[in-house]
Amino acid sequence: MRLKDLGEFGLIQKFFRSAGTRDRSVLAGIGDDAAVIALGSDHCLLVTTDILLEDIHFTQRFTTPFLLGKKSVAVNLSDIAAMGGDPRYYVVSLSVPGSLPVRFVQELYRGMRSRARQWGVVLLGGDTTGSKHGVSLSITMIGTAARSRVVYRHGARPGDQIYVTGTLGNAALGLTLLMRGLDGPESRQLIRRHQDPEPRVAVGRMLGAQKIATSMIDISDGLLGDLHHILEQSQVGARLVRDAIPLSRQYKKFCQYAGSDPYRCALAGGEDYELLFTAPAHHHARIHRIAQSLKLPITPIGEIIKRPGWLEVVDKHGRRVPVGREKGFTHF
Amino acid sequence: MRLKDLGEFGLIQKFFRSAGTRDRSVLAGIGDDAAVIALGSDHCLLVTTDILLEDIHFTQRFTTPFLLGKKSVAVNLSDIAAMGGDPRYYVVSLSVPGSLPVRFVQELYRGMRSRARQWGVVLLGGDTTGSKHGVSLSITMIGTAARSRVVYRHGARPGDQIYVTGTLGNAALGLTLLMRGLDGPESRQLIRRHQDPEPRVAVGRMLGAQKIATSMIDISDGLLGDLHHILEQSQVGARLVRDAIPLSRQYKKFCQYAGSDPYRCALAGGEDYELLFTAPAHHHARIHRIAQSLKLPITPIGEIIKRPGWLEVVDKHGRRVPVGREKGFTHF
Repeated sequence: MRLKDLGEFGLIQKFFRSAGTRDRSVLAGIGDDAAVIALGSDHCLLVTTDILLEDIHFTQRFTTPFLLGKKSVAVNLSDIAAMGGDPRYYVVSLSVPGSLPVRFVQELYRGMRSRARQWGVVLLGGDTTGSKHGVSLSITMIGTAARSRVVYRHGARPGDQIYVTGTLGNAALGLTLLMRGLDGPESRQLIRRHQDPEPRVAVGRMLGAQKIATSMIDISDGLLGDLHHILEQSQVGARLVRDAIPLSRQYKKFCQYAGSDPYRCALAGGEDYELLFTAPAHHHARIHRIAQSLKLPITPIGEIIKRPGWLEVVDKHGRRVPVGREKGFTHF
Repeated sequence: MRLKDLGEFGLIQKFFRSAGTRDRSVLAGIGDDAAVIALGSDHCLLVTTDILLEDIHFTQRFTTPFLLGKKSVAVNLSDIAAMGGDPRYYVVSLSVPGSLPVRFVQELYRGMRSRARQWGVVLLGGDTTGSKHGVSLSITMIGTAARSRVVYRHGARPGDQIYVTGTLGNAALGLTLLMRGLDGPESRQLIRRHQDPEPRVAVGRMLGAQKIATSMIDISDGLLGDLHHILEQSQVGARLVRDAIPLSRQYKKFCQYAGSDPYRCALAGGEDYELLFTAPAHHHARIHRIAQSLKLPITPIGEIIKRPGWLEVVDKHGRRVPVGREKGFTHF
């Protein structure tokens, strides 16, 4: 059997999970946004790693080295944010062809530093090597959190409301527009969301610190796919209200113009790096205050139900909407 | 300017170092075997990362997926060992072509786990992705150490003795033999040293815990190159006694047979992953006891002198031996 027959998630499950861990200091290993290590009685380390590979995750045609650097740090910040943690340190593994202009690496680091500095995250070092084919960039980020404030994927409970930050589908639509050469002034904002996602560190930290969220994940594989991870690990189901999904003005305008279903990208498109979380209904007012203080929309889009693994989408009239539960992007 | 004109070390210095770090919790960043982070008043985290790239660092012709997995963990263990630390956790970034047999990844993980389990090191998780060209493997390892016991590269003092563990040159000669197709029963032990290095975790930990070593590094770039890092960071010089350099029986036999200078590989060859350290002369007896208890040779091969950056090699009669100070392997 070849890897492409197995698929990425199959591969990860097959090998990483079987590794298991019987070390008592590891509170969460594979299968959350970041691994969680107990440090002393009250503190935790959060560890996450992400690869960005040329012509798989990005192409130099559609981004700049500066934005690539920013994004590589942002996607890791987003993982720490999704655990309610404080991002602190990162290391970089970088493989680049010798034929690449020095300026490329300069700009890449400038991008990394610019995103890292925004959140006080420190570059510890890394390994750099020549490659024969393209750029490969892997970042490992370390965060900290109080043990009682870490937010996992497995805490969602029936009756909890499901929330998302920001607006959805922008990054996926932005990429589509880029690929079609529609890089004009009207589409620039959507394209920016693909090239330069804004990690939701502040809101993740507040939802953890105030013990509001019962479960949390960042939307990197698409709303449905990522919600499914929460359902699976929390052993619950969900009912989503399609019409409640927050969409940006530009996003709606482009969908209307193209005559395409605005909920397609919003449900299945990835890389928005917004936070998806669940919280008991009585926290609604506190969530509203957080949204106001951060000037970031946080929208309830459904609720957690008992039926494990069940995911249904209804329209504003409560009628079921068929959605081909498109899974996240598979790398093989 | 292209990267190949700059060279690897130039690249690392140019970008990583300029990143600097003004975070007070970072006791050492780029420029040692691992970064050191202060945790509370007495404890430290050690963080290191290493890339293994197909056709740059390894070729499938010269190793097996199992041995590659072992080595990928071993080189990171070696970095933690060279700081006097306890290796604890690791994460893996793996890119593999979809056409690769599943068995390859199975064996790779089996190799990683086998080396990690030997030292109680736990796999936290990682990221896995398809690649278009070859296998790329990057591991980030986290260790712990008491703050007062971390051994840096910058502590060597004039008068300190210079020691190495094990015997040198084996891995470099093993690779040469492999490349020449000389994979016979007599050369197998040397080839093994290239394919499956043994990280010196126990001795590194003891040298740190007993506060014996004043500086330490692992020999991955060759004795001269790695000693030079210590000299540079400690602002001292060194006099090495060439004839004191420990060589294995097989190694000497092959050099004799080929009529080649046995000290060439031993001085400049890399990837032995032995530890090179300095210690005050009065610790000699304690070092001897550690060597006996671990059944691992630890050999004095010279001494630290005042003259900063100066590195001279003498024979057993004290006569200067000219050595083209070959630098470590450059990736561009």
